[in-house]
Amino acid sequence: MVQSNSSQVEQDAAGQVTEVATRSREAARVLRPTSGAVRNTALRALADAVDAAATDVVRANGADLSRGREGGLSEALLDRLALDEARVHAVAEGLRDVAALPDPLGDVVRGSTLPNGLQVRQLRVPMGVVGMIYEARPNVTVDAAGLALKSGNAVILRGGSAAEQTNRALVGVLREALTAQGLPADAVALLEGGREVVRALMAARGLVDVLIPRGGAGLIRTVVEESTVPVIETGVGNCHVYVDAAADLGKALPILLNSKTHRPSVCNAAESLLVHRDVADAFLPKALTELTTAGVRVHVDERAARCAQAAGTAYEPATEEDWDTEYLSLDLAVRVVDSLDEALDHVGRHGSGHTEAIVTEDRSAARRWVAEVDAAAVLVNASTRFTDGAQLGLGAEIGISTQKLHARGPMGLAELTTTTWVIEGDGQVRA
Amino acid sequence: MVQSNSSQVEQDAAGQVTEVATRSREAARVLRPTSGAVRNTALRALADAVDAAATDVVRANGADLSRGREGGLSEALLDRLALDEARVHAVAEGLRDVAALPDPLGDVVRGSTLPNGLQVRQLRVPMGVVGMIYEARPNVTVDAAGLALKSGNAVILRGGSAAEQTNRALVGVLREALTAQGLPADAVALLEGGREVVRALMAARGLVDVLIPRGGAGLIRTVVEESTVPVIETGVGNCHVYVDAAADLGKALPILLNSKTHRPSVCNAAESLLVHRDVADAFLPKALTELTTAGVRVHVDERAARCAQAAGTAYEPATEEDWDTEYLSLDLAVRVVDSLDEALDHVGRHGSGHTEAIVTEDRSAARRWVAEVDAAAVLVNASTRFTDGAQLGLGAEIGISTQKLHARGPMGLAELTTTTWVIEGDGQVRA
Repeated sequence: MVQSNSSQVEQDAAGQVTEVATRSREAARVLRPTSGAVRNTALRALADAVDAAATDVVRANGADLSRGREGGLSEALLDRLALDEARVHAVAEGLRDVAALPDPLGDVVRGSTLPNGLQVRQLRVPMGVVGMIYEARPNVTVDAAGLALKSGNAVILRGGSAAEQTNRALVGVLREALTAQGLPADAVALLEGGREVVRALMAARGLVDVLIPRGGAGLIRTVVEESTVPVIETGVGNCHVYVDAAADLGKALPILLNSKTHRPSVCNAAESLLVHRDVADAFLPKALTELTTAGVRVHVDERAARCAQAAGTAYEPATEEDWDTEYLSLDLAVRVVDSLDEALDHVGRHGSGHTEAIVTEDRSAARRWVAEVDAAAVLVNASTRFTDGAQLGLGAEIGISTQKLHARGPMGLAELTTTTWVIEGDGQVRA
Repeated sequence: MVQSNSSQVEQDAAGQVTEVATRSREAARVLRPTSGAVRNTALRALADAVDAAATDVVRANGADLSRGREGGLSEALLDRLALDEARVHAVAEGLRDVAALPDPLGDVVRGSTLPNGLQVRQLRVPMGVVGMIYEARPNVTVDAAGLALKSGNAVILRGGSAAEQTNRALVGVLREALTAQGLPADAVALLEGGREVVRALMAARGLVDVLIPRGGAGLIRTVVEESTVPVIETGVGNCHVYVDAAADLGKALPILLNSKTHRPSVCNAAESLLVHRDVADAFLPKALTELTTAGVRVHVDERAARCAQAAGTAYEPATEEDWDTEYLSLDLAVRVVDSLDEALDHVGRHGSGHTEAIVTEDRSAARRWVAEVDAAAVLVNASTRFTDGAQLGLGAEIGISTQKLHARGPMGLAELTTTTWVIEGDGQVRA
């Protein structure tokens, strides 16, 4: 019996997921009619419980870190995985912040009284059961549980195996605290096991209402392509900064540097710079010098190369591939364009529909950019880094959607809800 | 060369769909920045063109009808397929009605000025390319094209093969009229061919932004399960009417009869009746008599059977399967329950999340029904038939969504849009 039996493994995983998700649905049924006050009290109790368990959580995290080091995890991954007591308390504080946000449930999205006297309201209600598939960061475990509880949803968490002990400790604390609050522990569930468990979760249509993958491009593509549960795609950002002929170059330079270098590893960092030919000579030599000083490697077209030569800065020639690359590093593709039309065309061909910024003082160019660019966020004279739930005042962010259905751009609590039409009458029937 | 080569057929279909969808994307790019005035003028021109082509359309429809009769299509299907000149003019009038609706584009969904001076607006914008997969009714061809154009989207239509000639004639008229208006003909495209074309359309992720299947349960399930393009699920309605202990039986009877018999073949017709035991004897004998008189076959549990016996009406014993069946016919499952809780539990287990109605004068029972039932529409003292875009004042309906993501319940023009965050600044960067 040393032979592995993949179909048995798959069946076991499907059974495990069905059992967990069925309990989650029951928890969601209990959560649905709870008041905002009950959910906020519970969130604060969860925060206190996480605070109280900080030492245990850090100990569990230490075990994950040792295993990770032995298994040869990179320093970057170990850093994402690591929790100390201060970080645990910050995570708990995040739950209190979520408790303080307005309740997304019960909002009347639209409403009217019809000529026949029917009173109609479209209300925000919980989605039901939300699945999260994510990688190393254990803070996502608590953040996602908090946002789900706030919005009246049960959540099924599938964290990375590297954070297994930490996640188990955190979810244990959350479930105990839920029970102490008279709420179902199954409102927060953790799925463990291999890829077959992820596959079973993606197939749990009817039990799980939405799946949100957060992580690398490979993970997200797998979930998007294979899941029969509806998915909200997050992730890829091939974001552009376009410096228009009518740009204020004194604004363009800080916007460019902030967009590229503020935090290059995230999806709202700029990956390509487009510069109108009329300002290329005035802008690019200085910009390339400052970029190079900031440690950025530039991948340039022929005209930008001449500016780099004039400035005496290092560069690499750009290939077609560069225009489509989300570097997530201190790299930047640079191209000189002949016109706003050419910039729009480039963004239409190579952009990923995440965030596209123009720098211009020309109202008509700004209007065209806003009207014609098809992206989750279009910016005029501001850094691409503003495509962010906290920056935009959403109060909390469960991810940044790059799809058009349901949610686009930073997703807050409202994006974890759906709606119900409530139709109240006095015996009305259709004629 | 009589051998069929399925992989070649699939490749050809993929090539055809890629070519069509690429042209649709280009058309969508042109439509995106058009004003509401331009799109409304075009819609009225399309209406005039359909009116002018009525004779040709009816002739093409005659060819489809003959082929259908020869091929043994049922009378019901032939009836759905048939167009006479009056029906063609009604379809054209529908386009004028859509032109008269408010523009869904450009609406500010939320907006604010942030402390750093950034002006933020979340705007409604077109989805891009919408795919419709539907069956016999050729009026859907024009309706869908009109709603797509109104909302700034290009549409790819995949109608049923039974309506091939009719759809070809209608789409030809629409495309010519678009060209005459200076808009791209490819804003409305028709896909012809076999199932391999549908499969290629479902795989056109990145080219097609959303697929909306309308038709039988089999079609919808196939699209939901196989499509990598995001799908809005429409369709199945296993709707309940629950007559509470505190029901006004004088309201309950017309609501029940209207819900079941007004149009039994559609998704918002009632399929099950639940009656509280306290009113079973007072309500059911009369209700079963009236239902039977209206031609309804009742499938009853034991307690309801006793009422049928008391009334002397025909009945069949209900099986477990009846509770889960969307009859779409003059059939009704009937069950007596002990409590509101049992009714809620039954609806939670067997409902399809479409439309659930309670009849009660008890405010607290009504409140619980609204808070605890998880469905696209929950009704109090009104017929299930009100879950309908026109009835709810949406002005137009592209289908009724039974999913929770993006759209739930009747979908109007707003549901054919997505949003963009427009962020305007004066050089802001992140600290």
